[in-house]
Parts: sequence; C-alpha cells; structure tokens
Amino acid sequence: MQANFDFQAWTAARLLTVEQALERWVPAQAPAGLGDAMRYAVLDGGKRLRPLLVLAAREAVAQSVPDAALDEAALRAACAVELIHAYSLVHDDMPCMDNDVLRRGKPTVHVKFGEAAALLAGDALQALAFELLTPDDTSIPVAVQLRLCQRLARASGHAGMAGGQAIDLASVGVALNEAQLRQMHRLKTGALLEGSVLLGADCALQPAAAWPALQTYAQALGIAFQVVDDVLDVVSDAATLGKTVGKDAANDKPTFVSIMGLERSRAYAQELLAQALQALDQSGLTRTAALRALAHMVVNRNN
Amino acid sequence: MQANFDFQAWTAARLLTVEQALERWVPAQAPAGLGDAMRYAVLDGGKRLRPLLVLAAREAVAQSVPDAALDEAALRAACAVELIHAYSLVHDDMPCMDNDVLRRGKPTVHVKFGEAAALLAGDALQALAFELLTPDDTSIPVAVQLRLCQRLARASGHAGMAGGQAIDLASVGVALNEAQLRQMHRLKTGALLEGSVLLGADCALQPAAAWPALQTYAQALGIAFQVVDDVLDVVSDAATLGKTVGKDAANDKPTFVSIMGLERSRAYAQELLAQALQALDQSGLTRTAALRALAHMVVNRNN
Repeated sequence: MQANFDFQAWTAARLLTVEQALERWVPAQAPAGLGDAMRYAVLDGGKRLRPLLVLAAREAVAQSVPDAALDEAALRAACAVELIHAYSLVHDDMPCMDNDVLRRGKPTVHVKFGEAAALLAGDALQALAFELLTPDDTSIPVAVQLRLCQRLARASGHAGMAGGQAIDLASVGVALNEAQLRQMHRLKTGALLEGSVLLGADCALQPAAAWPALQTYAQALGIAFQVVDDVLDVVSDAATLGKTVGKDAANDKPTFVSIMGLERSRAYAQELLAQALQALDQSGLTRTAALRALAHMVVNRNN
Repeated sequence: MQANFDFQAWTAARLLTVEQALERWVPAQAPAGLGDAMRYAVLDGGKRLRPLLVLAAREAVAQSVPDAALDEAALRAACAVELIHAYSLVHDDMPCMDNDVLRRGKPTVHVKFGEAAALLAGDALQALAFELLTPDDTSIPVAVQLRLCQRLARASGHAGMAGGQAIDLASVGVALNEAQLRQMHRLKTGALLEGSVLLGADCALQPAAAWPALQTYAQALGIAFQVVDDVLDVVSDAATLGKTVGKDAANDKPTFVSIMGLERSRAYAQELLAQALQALDQSGLTRTAALRALAHMVVNRNN
C-alpha cells in the first residue's frame, strides 16, 4: 500500500499533463474549421476520468525502473481514449440521436458549428485516436503500440461502445430487465472504461500478471459509473450536472433507477465499489492508491 | 513486364476473395440491428477499387517467395480501407451532409435504417477497420500491422479524407480556383486512394524501394478519379451511375468541369493517366500490370 497518498495532488498533476498533451495533439490547423470543432469538442471540459484510469493503471503495473517510452505510450493511450469518448459525445448529442443542446455547460458541437461539421469532427476524432497510438516514435515498443490499437478498436466498435449505443437506441420505450440493462451499459460506457484500465496495463513490457484483477476492477467500475449516472439524472439539477437532467425518463429510456428504484440503485453502486476495491486487494499490485481513489470518486461524485 | 496479363480474370479472382472476406469480417451478430446496417453499407455493392489497389500494389512489391502472412495482411488492409470508404459514404449521404437517398442503386443507409442507426453504423465501421488491421494473428509481422494502422489512420483523418470533406463542406457556393479544388480532392478522395496503394506496398518485410514511384502513381490516380467523377456527374444518367446525377451543379459545388470545362477536364484525366503509367515505368517494379490496368479502368470508366 502507498502511505500518505495525496489523490488531489496526483490528479492535478496528471490532469495538467493530459490537458497539455491534448492541446498539443488535437490539431488547430486542420482544414476549413475542422480543427476548431475538434478542439471545441475535446479541450477545456470533461472530468478526464478515462485518461486518469489509463495513467493510474499504468502506474499500478509499472516496474520500479522508470521507462519514459512506456510513460509516453500511456499518455498517448490516455488521450486516445478521451478522443473516442469525446467523439461519441459529439455524435450522441446530434439531433438524430439524443438531440442535446447542452454539454459540460456549453452549447453542444452541432449547435455551435452545425450538424455536418459535428459529424465530421466526430469522425476525425476517432481517426485521430489511432493516429496518436501510432506515432513516428520508434522508442515506444512496436508490440505495445499494436496492443493499444487492438484494445482501443475493440473497445470502441460493434462489440464495445458502438454496440452498446445500438442497444440503447433500440431500447427506447422497451421494457428491459436488469440483466439486459447491465449488458447494454457493459458495452455502452463499460467497454471504454474497462478499456482505459487495460490500456494502462498494456503499457508494460510484459502483459501484467494482475490483468484479471484489473479487469474485475474495471468491469465493476464501469457498471457503477452508469448506476451513479442514472441516480444523478434523477436527483441532480442541470447546473450541478452541466447537462440536461431528467432526459432518460422524458425519453422513456430504461435506467437502473427505473428498474431497481433509487435506494437500491444507491446501494448497488456501493456494492460495486466494494467489488472493485476487493479486486485490487487481491491483485498483488502495491501501487493501487490512485485506482482506489478513482473508484471512490466515480461512485461518490455529484456530477 | 507481365506478358498476357488477363485483367478480367485477375479482377474476378480478387473481387471474390475480397467479397468473401468482407462477408466473414463484417459482423452479422453485432447487437440490436447494428450488424445489419453495417453489412448493408458494405456488402453487395461497390466497385471495390480501393481493395483492388491494395492487392495490386502488394503484388507489385512482393518477393518471388510466397508469404501467406503478408498476403493475409494485404487482404485485411484491402477490407479495412473499403470499410473506411463505406463509412464515409454512409455519413456523407446523411441529411445534414449531402442528403442523398440513392447509392449504388439502393436506398442509402439512413433511408433504410434511420439516421441514428446510420450514424452508429458508420462509427462502428471505422472502428472495425482498425480491428481488422490488428487481428489475434501472430503470423503477421507486428511491424507490418502497426504500419498499416498508422497509414490508414492518417489517410482517414483530419489531414486526409475527413479534412477534405471539411473543405468540401466549406466550399459550397464559394469560388475555388483550380489549385484549391485539387487540394480539396487530394484529401477528400485522393488520400484514401493513395493510402490504398501505399497500404499494399506496406505489406512487405522491407519498406518498398519503389515507394516514391508508387506515391506518384497513386496521387495522379487520385486526382484523375475525381476529374472523371465530375465529368460523369455531368454527362451520365442515374441508371448508369447508380446515384443521383447533377447534384454538384444543383448544390453550387465547384467541380473540375465547372472550372476547366468538359473537354479540358477529359484531357486532364488522360494526362494524369499518362503520369501514373510513367511513374510505374520508372519504378523498377516488374509486376505492375494490375496497377496499370486499374489506372486505365479509373480514367475510362463510365460509372
């Protein structure tokens, strides 16, 4: 265990690094305003939970000998997963999907730049994620770069995030049971959260022995994230949440709260937190303080 | 030179392989109808020009010793680039972009499945392209897989196809000159056509010495493709072309024909063909018959 771990200082330092990297890597010079829309979608907003998970997992599996190339790989993976998350929000907010006009307290990308530009910016952000993972930087081991591409593509695609969104789309007005709802979220939000943890664990010369424990941690965290989201959609207000509230009920979308009720949902989130922490306890990893603190943050957040 | 090259037989054999691979790799089982929309967008249609370019370039740079792993890499690259092309068409056809209802003689994806499903299917096809390039197949050299990911991401993103689409979007009703028009198409269509040729050349154990010649070939071909597209948009009919005609003029979009006139555009396409063939002549490569025939096909096609 890490004594005297200062989560606030840890987070502040990593957020600074991630923001600077995104500022550098999301191109201002992309043609015809495309760069502006891409940067608007990514910069200056967001909790950066996925990048923090990548970096925390990388630190948990790191050898005691520093390795700048693997740190660079982890930073690239952290930014790449955030680009995938950002593109999914841009497309999700469009009129043909959730038709949301407010995101992180700002007008959504299609409101600000128009629908066509939002569509293209999302598409270009997805490509940019894979560009970040494949730099002209020969110091990062080729096998690590390839593993990151492989993991991110699968977490994003039909068997991951996009598949979960398709289930979500098909589930409006449909009575899902709890198992079906969990399956939807396991893909829709869970795949990328789980992917974040495993991308961090991929930034090692050897596949991490603690991989199954990290997967258990990540899967519990992914479901917990969505349960808490559903709770906040009911109990919070737009100013705190930074986005439209009560939309799921208005859209007749099934949620954990609509199926389990508010109090059982809250208790379920705490159970999942306990599962995630227990997985870390049994992982054999010693530097898990950041992963533990992130799990607490996900479950006990208010926005 | 290859004596007695039978282009028709060459094409038929490769198309069969590509169609079977796409049939296998574009997942029917993706959740909630997502697979149906993805397969509708990709299967049973299209000239497969980009996959043919990948395979022709791979054959041009191949060693005399057969290499099944590199053949597999080329087939994966051929399908991946077609998935990127297919996703771009799905998104391009959407109401917020070109609002097209007819593609390859069939209703477009959003007409058939709805806009939200079309948006998601396009997103999932882009991810699938990178999944195809990163299989759990350890026989393909890791460095080759990584080079393919790197090349495809750049050809698709803000400095490639998506960037060109952004210029296209911004150019409606704007008086572009010939150089600006060429720059737009160098990205919008050219980047992926050029990428196809270079993806094929990447499927080799050593970077191909003929790389610069192949790039010259591919760049000339990319522009020629668009010049011919603009000519066909004016002179063809919907039945031959399989899509709505005269849309560029109706949308007040600049084209090679609107800037150069019809006859100069036709002559320009032939000049570009000559440039492409000359680059192959000077490449030092001996098995270029398929690349030569494909260039002829692009310039002298009628749909």
